[in-house]
Amino acid sequence: MAPPRGLAGQNPAGLTYSQKVRIKQTHTGASRERGELALLAEIRQRAARAASLGQKGGLSLGIGDDCALLTPRRGDELAVTTDLLIDGSHFHLNWHQPETVGHRAMARGLSDLAAMGARPVAAFLSLGLPRSLTMDSAVSRRTGSRSWVQRFLDGFLALAKAYKTPLAGGDLAESTLAVADIVLIGAVPRGRALLRSGAKPGDLLYVTGTLGGAAAGLTRLSELASSAEPNPPRIPKKLEALLAPHLYPQPRIAQGLWLQRRGLASAALDLSDGLSTDLAHLCVESGVAAEIDATLVPLGLGANLAQALHGGEDYELLFTAPPAARLPRAIARVPVTRIGRILKPRAAHPDLTLITPQGPRPLEAKGWEHFC
Amino acid sequence: MAPPRGLAGQNPAGLTYSQKVRIKQTHTGASRERGELALLAEIRQRAARAASLGQKGGLSLGIGDDCALLTPRRGDELAVTTDLLIDGSHFHLNWHQPETVGHRAMARGLSDLAAMGARPVAAFLSLGLPRSLTMDSAVSRRTGSRSWVQRFLDGFLALAKAYKTPLAGGDLAESTLAVADIVLIGAVPRGRALLRSGAKPGDLLYVTGTLGGAAAGLTRLSELASSAEPNPPRIPKKLEALLAPHLYPQPRIAQGLWLQRRGLASAALDLSDGLSTDLAHLCVESGVAAEIDATLVPLGLGANLAQALHGGEDYELLFTAPPAARLPRAIARVPVTRIGRILKPRAAHPDLTLITPQGPRPLEAKGWEHFC
Repeated sequence: MAPPRGLAGQNPAGLTYSQKVRIKQTHTGASRERGELALLAEIRQRAARAASLGQKGGLSLGIGDDCALLTPRRGDELAVTTDLLIDGSHFHLNWHQPETVGHRAMARGLSDLAAMGARPVAAFLSLGLPRSLTMDSAVSRRTGSRSWVQRFLDGFLALAKAYKTPLAGGDLAESTLAVADIVLIGAVPRGRALLRSGAKPGDLLYVTGTLGGAAAGLTRLSELASSAEPNPPRIPKKLEALLAPHLYPQPRIAQGLWLQRRGLASAALDLSDGLSTDLAHLCVESGVAAEIDATLVPLGLGANLAQALHGGEDYELLFTAPPAARLPRAIARVPVTRIGRILKPRAAHPDLTLITPQGPRPLEAKGWEHFC
Repeated sequence: MAPPRGLAGQNPAGLTYSQKVRIKQTHTGASRERGELALLAEIRQRAARAASLGQKGGLSLGIGDDCALLTPRRGDELAVTTDLLIDGSHFHLNWHQPETVGHRAMARGLSDLAAMGARPVAAFLSLGLPRSLTMDSAVSRRTGSRSWVQRFLDGFLALAKAYKTPLAGGDLAESTLAVADIVLIGAVPRGRALLRSGAKPGDLLYVTGTLGGAAAGLTRLSELASSAEPNPPRIPKKLEALLAPHLYPQPRIAQGLWLQRRGLASAALDLSDGLSTDLAHLCVESGVAAEIDATLVPLGLGANLAQALHGGEDYELLFTAPPAARLPRAIARVPVTRIGRILKPRAAHPDLTLITPQGPRPLEAKGWEHFC
């Protein structure tokens, strides 16, 4: 095992780019010709380019010091979310092309901001990676001429750029297991954030987009990965549309901002764990019950009702609004569908009910369950 | 391998407490009698207690929604730092009692805030842990009646409490390797943060406290761990003082705030990688050179000069001030020592020089080196 940091004179097991470390090119003793220094320089350079995209009133100091500095606009609150992704659990090195891992990591953080009605201000990225994923040479057979982490950053930074979100810092360490922790910071006018806790009996229940597409895509991807060489599999053109909801989910930032600015939603969250489970979260936080009409649930490409109800990772918004609120059919070109309503909780009645053509039945929270 | 999130109906490999997940006690199918739910409830409960300690103008919404919300004071900037800790690299499960891993994680983040002259506002914690570390029963032989993660939180939250820093969110996942990503957010009046980039030729160079004590303690701990049962070793009373700088480093928040409020320091950073390496960082960012007087370097308990120069993880502050600045001998009861001065960089001269009784010699950055 490698010694912990600080054992003077020993060869450490990790590196840090982050706010806190500048690589000193005059360090002695070790070969510095390898790809890591180039990677570190590249991260800072690419982050700096991205920072110039930062929105006004946001990032004032990026990578290069002990901390990044953010300058909030007067009257804004800051929304903060962290998401830990681990190889074998949240992604698979053997299933997912590195760009899609980067994209999905950033999408997961941005989706949490969307759920609060916040606009993105800055992202931070902590990466623990096996050495093979940071070196050009060792992985060139698998990934072409660029390293895994460079291609991860391609996906991560492309989505960051699309949402004008600078990479403001982070940390980088060697690890036997690939892990990424994504921190997103957003801004929202004080008191205007969309919360999970505001739903009231009588409110109607809406979703953006379609559901179950990510689960359908993941099922197809797992089949592809188990049957195809090389791993991760290249996606055939004809499967791109089917796999897109899983590989390239789109955070609903514009839709969250729209709802926040109009003040129409009484509660909101993003569908990361699956509709049944996330709706259960909303009901717990708001102290309410809910019913969903199975015939109204908008199915994603290739998805069945079970995938739409329990699949998770669709990263659509689930929100409630009073019956008097006039919701459009689409917000920023993404459809909005009414799928049910909020009820008063009743003793000895299930919190979640699914209305089907055969009548109502209890809806179990069968999405992403935690530690079971 | 476990399936990624979102494969409906499969047994997932991770859990999330975080802002985004409430455990629904009515989830079906799985035994819920184990210790994890109790752990999740405990984290939220303990975090809520800690949140009540939050400073005014700080955390307005903690764990329980998609994001936490911070309300900055008018005129403040927010300082953000992330630190990734990995078993076998930044700590050892077989060397370190869990409380010390938690303490050191929080200390590392707080120390970055101290280096900017920021006051802590909120902490976020992402944990990836093997199941054995989250379950009471499986680890009771090793850690007594409480789980590893509970004892980790003891150390983490005790230091958080000492610095009035609420745990505002995070993420939790099962992992084959123990990893922790620590995010600290602090506040500092706009334009007043201590940066690495402000040192000027002629400025004097200071450190707080003593140096090398963490490296001396780590050396002793590694000996103890290799010779003693059980692992991690219990620390004998007579070694507590020697090991304290490594096991329980103290972030210099009060000293950083003092320097920031008086405007005396032209540049500052915290000594995480070792004096020689961190001073090199400061010189790069400020575009200067520096010399240190070996006879002036304050040695920690049991430390030699090499450990003081290169040892790392002392988490003291290294700062510069103009010669006219009057620095006290101690700030908030921690000694302040002048150890050298800032020079103009000269071509073909080393950036760092060590003045010894035998004359000057180049000082190589031999502390925590990155990816070598």
